[in-house]
Amino acid sequence: MSVTAAQGFRASGVIAGLKPSGRPDVALVVNDGPAHAAAAVFTSNRVEAAPVTWSRQVVSDGRADAVILNSGGANAITGAQGFADTHATAEHVAQLLEVSAGDVVVCSTGLIGELLPMPKLLAGADESAKSLSAQGGPAAAEAIMTTDTVAKESVVTQDGWTVGGMAKGAGMLAPALATMLVVITTDAVLDESEADEALHAATSVTFDRIDSDGCQSTNDTVLLMASGASGVRPDLARFNDALTQVCADLARQLIGDAEGAAHDIAIEVVHAADLDDALEVGRSIARNNLFKCAIFGQDPNWGRILAAVGTTKAAFEPHRLAVSINGVQVCRDGGVGEDRSLVDLTGRDVHVVVDLAAGDQGATIWTNDLTHDYVHENSAYST
Amino acid sequence: MSVTAAQGFRASGVIAGLKPSGRPDVALVVNDGPAHAAAAVFTSNRVEAAPVTWSRQVVSDGRADAVILNSGGANAITGAQGFADTHATAEHVAQLLEVSAGDVVVCSTGLIGELLPMPKLLAGADESAKSLSAQGGPAAAEAIMTTDTVAKESVVTQDGWTVGGMAKGAGMLAPALATMLVVITTDAVLDESEADEALHAATSVTFDRIDSDGCQSTNDTVLLMASGASGVRPDLARFNDALTQVCADLARQLIGDAEGAAHDIAIEVVHAADLDDALEVGRSIARNNLFKCAIFGQDPNWGRILAAVGTTKAAFEPHRLAVSINGVQVCRDGGVGEDRSLVDLTGRDVHVVVDLAAGDQGATIWTNDLTHDYVHENSAYST
Repeated sequence: MSVTAAQGFRASGVIAGLKPSGRPDVALVVNDGPAHAAAAVFTSNRVEAAPVTWSRQVVSDGRADAVILNSGGANAITGAQGFADTHATAEHVAQLLEVSAGDVVVCSTGLIGELLPMPKLLAGADESAKSLSAQGGPAAAEAIMTTDTVAKESVVTQDGWTVGGMAKGAGMLAPALATMLVVITTDAVLDESEADEALHAATSVTFDRIDSDGCQSTNDTVLLMASGASGVRPDLARFNDALTQVCADLARQLIGDAEGAAHDIAIEVVHAADLDDALEVGRSIARNNLFKCAIFGQDPNWGRILAAVGTTKAAFEPHRLAVSINGVQVCRDGGVGEDRSLVDLTGRDVHVVVDLAAGDQGATIWTNDLTHDYVHENSAYST
Repeated sequence: MSVTAAQGFRASGVIAGLKPSGRPDVALVVNDGPAHAAAAVFTSNRVEAAPVTWSRQVVSDGRADAVILNSGGANAITGAQGFADTHATAEHVAQLLEVSAGDVVVCSTGLIGELLPMPKLLAGADESAKSLSAQGGPAAAEAIMTTDTVAKESVVTQDGWTVGGMAKGAGMLAPALATMLVVITTDAVLDESEADEALHAATSVTFDRIDSDGCQSTNDTVLLMASGASGVRPDLARFNDALTQVCADLARQLIGDAEGAAHDIAIEVVHAADLDDALEVGRSIARNNLFKCAIFGQDPNWGRILAAVGTTKAAFEPHRLAVSINGVQVCRDGGVGEDRSLVDLTGRDVHVVVDLAAGDQGATIWTNDLTHDYVHENSAYST
C-alpha cells in the first residue's frame, strides 16, 4: 500500500498521455491531516529542474498538503516557462483540493530540456483528484515509473503508527542514474523539525549511499509527509529506525532495478580512518568503469579496485590494503592473495570488502555493474 | 621513426613471450649521448606500480641512459617481489649496456596483480640489446602495444634538431583508461631543468587533458630523454612548442584508438571564470556516462551535458549557459535552443562547446563515447 498504508493519506495514479507508451504517468498523494508536517531532500545538482526550485520553497515552512508527480517529462532546463508551468500545476492542484498552492509539492521525471504538454498534465491532475482513494498507493507507485521495470514500495508498521513509501528511478539522491523520486508518508505525530531531522538522518545512510553510475539528476526529490492521524507520538529513535528501514528497502529496490544492470554490488569499506574516507573510497570504486565492466564479465579483477582506491585522498598505506570479493581474499598486504579463480560471480549479488587498515570506521556503497544493456538503454533513451 | 628520429638514440622491439598473442612485447631505447638529460611525469595514482616507484628515483637526478619497456604485465600491486623484479631488470639492462642501473628507467604495462615471468623478460632484454639500431623506433613502438590497434609515433624536426616520440595506451596520464606509456627523445642540447620544465608544460596541456573513461592507471609514465647529439641549443620557446606538438599529436592518437570508442569528442569550455573551472567542467562532462552513451547513440542529449555542468563548483548562472554540438546551438540562455535534430553525429569527430558566460578563460578536454565495445573489451580483458 506504500504511501496510503499510513492513516490520513489518499493517493491515485492516472493516464494523462504524457508517456508515448500510454502507461500511467500522473500521481497524486494528499495528506488529509489532521497534521501536515513535511520535510524534503533535493538534488544537489546546481542545474535543478523547475519543480525542484518550486518544491524547495513549498517545504521550507515545514508544511505540505499534497504532492503531484508526473513521469514523461522532467521540466528541467526549461527556463521561465518551465517554472511558470510548475507554478500553474501547483495552483491547479490547490484549487482541486481546496488548499494553498504554497503547500503543493511538484515532482517531474523524464527527458530534460523539453516543456511539458500542460493541457494534458492539467487534465491528468483533474482525473487524479477524482480518483483519490485510501487504497491508491499502488496506482501512484506505478504512475511515477519511467525506465523502472517494477514499482517500488515499502511499509513498516509498529507501536501504533506506520511509515510507508514509494520510489521511482534507477538512481540515487546524489548522484543519480535517472531521476529518483521518493514519497514517504507516516501517520505518526511529528512536528516539522522532527520530520526534517529524521529524513536527513535516514537519507544520508541510504539514498546517499547508492551510486549506480555516478551521474546526478536535476530532479531528485525525497519527500516525507506526516499526517499525525494515528494520534500516536512515536519514540523518536524507533521512528528514525523505521524510516531508515523504509528508505534502505526502497534504495535497495532502486539498485536492484537499475538500468541494464546484471549485478548488484555492495562495496564495504572497513578500517577507514574516518567516515569520509570510507565514503570516498567506496564511491571511487563504485564509479570506476573498468571495475564495473569486470564485474559484468564475472572477472574478479581486484587490481582495478586498488587502482580506484589509489585515486582517493583517504588515509592508507598501499602495502597494507586487503580486498575480498564474495568471501575470497584476493588481495592481502597490498599484493596477491587467494587465487582469483575461487571467486564466484555468477549470482546477482556481489560483496566487495576493502580493508584500508587505517582506523575503525566503515561504510557501504551500493552500485551496479556496467553492461551492454546499460549502454543500450542510455544511448536510445530520447529517441 | 619516432624515438630514433633524433640523433644519438638506438631502439629495438622484440618478442620475449610475455604476451599470449606472441606479438613483440619488450622494447629498449638507449641514449648514446653525448648528453643524458632526462625528465619524466608519472601517474598520480597512490597505488603505483613497482616500475613507477623505481623510475621516479632514476630520473630524480635529471639523468637517464636507457629505458626498457614491457607489455604483457604491469608489475603493479606485486609487493616486494615486484619491486625486486624491476630492480633486477634495470641491473640486467645496465650490465648489457655498460651503464649504471640507477640510470635505467623501467616501464611495464598489462594486467595488474601478477608477477612478471622474469626469465622470459631478461632473455627478452638480452635480445633487445642485441637488436638495437638507429632505425629501431618503429619496432619499439610496436612492442609496447597492448589493446592498441595501431602503433603511435610522432616527429617534429626544425632548426637543426628533432623531437620524436612513441606512445601506447588508450588512455591518459591522469586519469587513464589503460596504462599510457610515452617515450620522447630529442637531440637538442638541453640541461635537465630545461627538459623537466618543457615536459611538464607540454604534458599539462596535452596528456593531462585527455580523459577517455575517468580511470587512472597505476603505471602511466611519460619520459623525455635529450642526447644533445645535434649540437644545437634550441630556442626554448620553439622547443617547447615542438614538444607540445609531439605530445598533442600522440595524445590525439591515443584518443583516436581508445578501447571500443566510436566517437572522438572534444569538449571545449569557453568563457570560464578561470582555467580550473574550465577544466573541472570539461572533465565532469567527459566522465558522465549518460552523456557518453548518448553520443554513442548519436543522440545530441544536451540535457545530460548541463546536468554534468551542474555537479561542478565552477562559477556560472544556470540561465546563462549555452551549449553547441557540432555547430548547432542546442541550448541557449539555459534553455532550449536550436532544434536538436539538426545535429549530425554520424561522423567520428564530435565538438561540444559549453559557454559558462562567467569570464574569459577556456580549455578543451578530449574524450570518447561509451559503447558496447568498451564494455565488451573491458569485461573480457583478463580472461
